[in-house]
Amino acid sequence: MAAPHSLSKLINELSKLPGIGEKSATRLAFYILKAPLSYAHNLSSALLEVKNKIQLCSRCFHFTQESLCEFCSNDQRSEQILCIVEEPADLLAIESSKTFDGKYHVLHGAISPLEGIGPEQLKIKELLLRIQKEQPVEIILATNISVEGETTALYLTKLLKPLGLKLTRIAHGIPLGGDLKYMDSATIGNAIQNRILMA
Amino acid sequence: MAAPHSLSKLINELSKLPGIGEKSATRLAFYILKAPLSYAHNLSSALLEVKNKIQLCSRCFHFTQESLCEFCSNDQRSEQILCIVEEPADLLAIESSKTFDGKYHVLHGAISPLEGIGPEQLKIKELLLRIQKEQPVEIILATNISVEGETTALYLTKLLKPLGLKLTRIAHGIPLGGDLKYMDSATIGNAIQNRILMA
Repeated sequence: MAAPHSLSKLINELSKLPGIGEKSATRLAFYILKAPLSYAHNLSSALLEVKNKIQLCSRCFHFTQESLCEFCSNDQRSEQILCIVEEPADLLAIESSKTFDGKYHVLHGAISPLEGIGPEQLKIKELLLRIQKEQPVEIILATNISVEGETTALYLTKLLKPLGLKLTRIAHGIPLGGDLKYMDSATIGNAIQNRILMA
Repeated sequence: MAAPHSLSKLINELSKLPGIGEKSATRLAFYILKAPLSYAHNLSSALLEVKNKIQLCSRCFHFTQESLCEFCSNDQRSEQILCIVEEPADLLAIESSKTFDGKYHVLHGAISPLEGIGPEQLKIKELLLRIQKEQPVEIILATNISVEGETTALYLTKLLKPLGLKLTRIAHGIPLGGDLKYMDSATIGNAIQNRILMA
């Protein structure tokens, strides 16, 4: 679409964001053009600030503004259970479920031979050192229920089994509100296989 | 969700964009965190540049970096036909259809009593002055096919009829690829009423 140069530059930058195509980017750019100048200023400075201030937690590799993240530096949280996730966003999703108050470890990815990501690209060496030092009682493998997530969970199971601690995996099954007739057959298969005894 | 301060600030700013909820904003923010620093810099400066450089064309009120937009300053385009649209984005959509090479006039909205938008909030006074000066032969009313767009088209029809020029309205009907069985009945009704003689 023909648009003034600085407008098409903004549209171009916005359309690099995940899930934002050229049409959405155009809509966002027009919104920004119509919004007060202060909005563009705030968004612009928030962008730069996030890159300047955010680093990885030296213990769990979650994003943080300090050297230790809010979860690692929180003494109220149990060190006995360690929950392993692929990405910081997964950590936040678990956190918002308010069902876990142990510590986290962020791998920053999952094993994916197709994308050339092996264990050495993930924070697994750091995980082993941490387990040795902190001696947790249980490790929850909370990588995604995807080919890559499952591969990673299996790899970690083999790797950690000799250490003799409790290893668990988040449950597979039908999500809340999930209607069986719209669910894929692999999910249904998992839900049947992992059925829970009610009485 | 608990996130470091500067991260939640970015998520907050991003979620003010249209169609971006907190979840999408979080996903975008994490993408920005993982992307090279140059991306945040480019997006940030594109945001500021667009607000600094883009203004409204003094003739048609499309966005432009000069005093006249690329369409108004293009002598190749006919001044005989004037196409009236609600928003600059509508202009770009028509432009990308490559079916019109006249001039445009952007109203910057549509009449909407519910939102308190009357003719005086739109670029209608400017349209009348322009018609007097430029004397187009035809005016295409290309406001949206919505209650507000139709109201605006009707209002303009009444207003411009005494001037004795040709007034047309973009066609209502079934969109390309539109399947009758999934179409709303008002659209089907319009398509039947505006049927075209084939032979």
